[in-house]
Amino acid sequence: MSVYTSVSEAELGDWLRNYSVGELKACEPIKSGIENTNYFVTTAQGRYVLTLFERLPAHELPFYLHLMAHLARHGIPCPAPIADLSDQYLGQLNGKPAALVTRLPGASLEKPAASHCAELGALLGRMHLAGRSYSAYLENPRGPKWWRVAAREVKPFLDAGKQKLLEAELAFQSDQRFPDLPRGPVHADLFRDNALFEGPRLCGVIDFYFAGVDCLLYDVAVCANDWCLNDPQKDPALHPARVQALLAAYHSVRPVTELERAAWPAMLRAAALRFWLSRLHDFHLPRPGMLVHAHDPEHFRRILHARVAAAAPWMA
Amino acid sequence: MSVYTSVSEAELGDWLRNYSVGELKACEPIKSGIENTNYFVTTAQGRYVLTLFERLPAHELPFYLHLMAHLARHGIPCPAPIADLSDQYLGQLNGKPAALVTRLPGASLEKPAASHCAELGALLGRMHLAGRSYSAYLENPRGPKWWRVAAREVKPFLDAGKQKLLEAELAFQSDQRFPDLPRGPVHADLFRDNALFEGPRLCGVIDFYFAGVDCLLYDVAVCANDWCLNDPQKDPALHPARVQALLAAYHSVRPVTELERAAWPAMLRAAALRFWLSRLHDFHLPRPGMLVHAHDPEHFRRILHARVAAAAPWMA
Repeated sequence: MSVYTSVSEAELGDWLRNYSVGELKACEPIKSGIENTNYFVTTAQGRYVLTLFERLPAHELPFYLHLMAHLARHGIPCPAPIADLSDQYLGQLNGKPAALVTRLPGASLEKPAASHCAELGALLGRMHLAGRSYSAYLENPRGPKWWRVAAREVKPFLDAGKQKLLEAELAFQSDQRFPDLPRGPVHADLFRDNALFEGPRLCGVIDFYFAGVDCLLYDVAVCANDWCLNDPQKDPALHPARVQALLAAYHSVRPVTELERAAWPAMLRAAALRFWLSRLHDFHLPRPGMLVHAHDPEHFRRILHARVAAAAPWMA
Repeated sequence: MSVYTSVSEAELGDWLRNYSVGELKACEPIKSGIENTNYFVTTAQGRYVLTLFERLPAHELPFYLHLMAHLARHGIPCPAPIADLSDQYLGQLNGKPAALVTRLPGASLEKPAASHCAELGALLGRMHLAGRSYSAYLENPRGPKWWRVAAREVKPFLDAGKQKLLEAELAFQSDQRFPDLPRGPVHADLFRDNALFEGPRLCGVIDFYFAGVDCLLYDVAVCANDWCLNDPQKDPALHPARVQALLAAYHSVRPVTELERAAWPAMLRAAALRFWLSRLHDFHLPRPGMLVHAHDPEHFRRILHARVAAAAPWMA
C-alpha cells in the first residue's frame, strides 16, 4: 500500500473543476507503486490517473511531464498529462505537487514470450526516435554519479565478496567510453510491470518518473535484464530467443551502431549495477515512511554476477 | 467521393517513416468530406486519419492543428495531431500539406435525443473553457466579413423575396453588438456528423477546419440549428426539450451571461445566415473540381426564416 497522502472525493471533485475533463464519477487509490501516491480517477470524460508527487525533487517534475506529453503527441502509447485551465500540467493538491494523466488500457505480463519482447523492442525504438526532438534535459538521476554516492552508503552493509564485486564493477564502468554512444531521453525503468498489453499488442508504457537523458542502449539493457531472463528465480542468464527478439525489433526501428554493439555487454552490467545499488539502498537504508517492502537486492547481484561472467568468461 | 489526391500504400508507408507510429498495416480512402482528401490509416501502433489539405489557405493550417492539439491535451476528445520526427504537425505528401491525427471511436447520430444534446452542450462548454488558454488567433473565416463577400456573389442568383431576406438579415446583424460577448476559439461547424457517440456518450468531436475565433455563443447556435430542429425535413422550429437540454448542460459548465441570453435569438439567426450563404455559394458557384453534391440551400433559408419569425413574431 502506498497512499501517502489521502484525497477525499470532495477534495478531488473540487480540484477537477480546474480541468476540462467533466465531473468526477469515481476515484480509487492504487496500492502498488513506491514513490508516489496514485489514484484511478473516472470523470464524465474518461479514465485518468492522479499522481501526488511525494518525494521527487520539484525541479525534475516538468522534465517527466513534458517528456510524456512529447512522446504522447508523437503517437507513443504513454500516459498523456492533462493540462488544466491555466494550461499547466503540474498542479497542487493537498499540499503536494500533483498531475492528472490519461489511464491506459491493458495489463502487464509476468512471463513474456519472444513475441512480446519484439513488441517491446519496436516500441522502445520508436520512443527513442520520438525522444530525439525533446529539448529538455535531465541527467539520468540514477546514473554513474549516483552509483558512486549510493555505493559509498551501502558498502558498510556488504560482506567482503560483495564489496569486491561492487568495487570491481565501478572501476570497470568508469573505463567505458559511453559518451560516444547515441544519447537521449530514456525511460530507464521499463520493467514488465511498466508495460501494458492487450492480447499480443503492447499498448502502454507507464511510470516515467525515473526517466532522464542517458545512452539509448542503456534503456534496452534495463529491459533485457528484466524481460529476458532464463528464469527470474533460478537462472539470470539471458534467454537467447527473447533477447534476440528484443534487439532485432529495436534495431529494425533504430539501427544500432557498431560502437553500441561493442558496448552491449558493458551496458547490461551497468543496468544490473544500477538496480543492485538501488535495491541495496532501499533495503539497508529505507527512507522514513516508506510503505512498501523493499525488493531483495540479491536478485540484481546475481544478474550482475552473471553478466560479468558472460562478458569475460575467462574470469568467471 | 472526395479523394482529390490519391496516395498509394507504398507512398504512405514511406511517408510514415518520418513518424513514430510503427509500420503501415492498412489504409482506406474516406468518401465523405468536401474540403480535403482523407484516409483511414492503421499502423502497428494505432488508428489514424490522414488529411491532405486541398484548398485551405496554408497560413490557416497551424491554427487548426495546434487548436486540436491544445484541446486534446486538455482532455477534449478531439483528433490529436501526431508530431513527426522533426516535431512538426504539418507535413507534405504528394505535393499537398498533410497531417496525421488520431482516429476516434464512435458514430454520429441522425436523430439525437435530448440526452445527446445535453452531452453535446456539456462538451461544448468544456471545449470553450479549455480554449481560453489557446493563444493563436484566426478570425472565423466564415464570419461577418465573409458574409458580405458571399452575399454579393450569390445575390444575382436569388429571386426578389430571397434577396430581401438576405439584405434585411445582413442589415439586422450589422446592428448587433456581438463584440461585447465572450469570445474564443469555436468549432463553428459542430453538426451531427462531426460528433461521435458510443452508446449515450459523446466520445469525439471531429473536423476543426472551419474553426476560428468568434463569440462562444455562436458555436452553441450552430449546434442548435442542426441538433434541435423539430423535424429537419418539415419543421425548422427548435424542439423545446432538446434545445433546453443543450443550453442547460452548456450553462452548467460555462455559465452564460445576461448579455448572451439577450443575444441568443440574433445568434441563431447569424448561424443560420452563415450556412444559408455557404450553401448558396456552393450551389450556384461550385468550385472547379468539387466532387461532392452541394447541399440544398433551401434548408438553411427555411431555418433563417423561422428564426427571424421566432425572434420578432409581430413581423412574420
